[in-house]
Amino acid sequence: SRELFVLTYGALVAQLCKDYEKDEDVNTYLDRMGYGIGVRLIDDFLARSAVKKCRSYSETADVIAQVAFKMYLGVTPTVSCSSAAGNEFSLILDKNPLVDFVEELPAERASLCYCNLLCGVIRGALEMVHLAAEVTFLQDRLKGDAVTEIGITFLRKAEDRKQKRD
Amino acid sequence: SRELFVLTYGALVAQLCKDYEKDEDVNTYLDRMGYGIGVRLIDDFLARSAVKKCRSYSETADVIAQVAFKMYLGVTPTVSCSSAAGNEFSLILDKNPLVDFVEELPAERASLCYCNLLCGVIRGALEMVHLAAEVTFLQDRLKGDAVTEIGITFLRKAEDRKQKRD
Repeated sequence: SRELFVLTYGALVAQLCKDYEKDEDVNTYLDRMGYGIGVRLIDDFLARSAVKKCRSYSETADVIAQVAFKMYLGVTPTVSCSSAAGNEFSLILDKNPLVDFVEELPAERASLCYCNLLCGVIRGALEMVHLAAEVTFLQDRLKGDAVTEIGITFLRKAEDRKQKRD
Repeated sequence: SRELFVLTYGALVAQLCKDYEKDEDVNTYLDRMGYGIGVRLIDDFLARSAVKKCRSYSETADVIAQVAFKMYLGVTPTVSCSSAAGNEFSLILDKNPLVDFVEELPAERASLCYCNLLCGVIRGALEMVHLAAEVTFLQDRLKGDAVTEIGITFLRKAEDRKQKRD
């Protein structure tokens, strides 16, 4: 049933492009909508995946790639850790099902992060399991890059921050 | 992966409700978007379902319910013919997966056909196989009806109309 989803997602992006002239605004709205979706999707994910508490950022990134992406998008990105501190990860997609029906971005939409909803979904879902993260597209095949790469940077835990403050 | 789709659809409807004050306008836009989706989805459907040419409206309605709904939404509506002329059908859904996360419509959105995209999808897909049809919601559980019912009225074939005109 993925095609109906992919086309419906396309309709959503098209609607936002009609509503907001600036690509940055569309990107922001997609991320914000995704956040709301992630916040609600996490329950479904935990129930159906039976994933237990992750013990490291690395394990969390693997679960996102191997369980969540597989479950909701039918693809499994490769994961690579990109910082010595061990809190930055890349999910690398050879194939992005969400752009199946998109040939290329129109010239006037060159800064659009077409799939930005996904970043928001990941961010929202992580927040519900008490992990703060920044999630952004680092590369995008729609923009001519060789692969599509989503960067996840786990931020210091809320408790750590609180402890430090106290 | 249906949950991500269902939540994304919700985000689309919410965006349209933000854009258009009148329920009728939102309904129209959902139908129009659905039409565009149906026009593109039909190729995928024909390729994956291996369905052959239908020989009657009744067979067409059965294929929509038993093959298309099953494939894209994971549910199978019951079909009933509701006209002596044999060109009006109802698809009756006990469960509508698209509203899984919707409790009820807000009071100020009482005329919203939340799932109107589906009508457009059916209409668009049918048109691509040269069948003109009107597709509308006749009942909706979101509005307190006992079931959700989509009415499909096949219109006289374009060739018939043309013949008559000639």
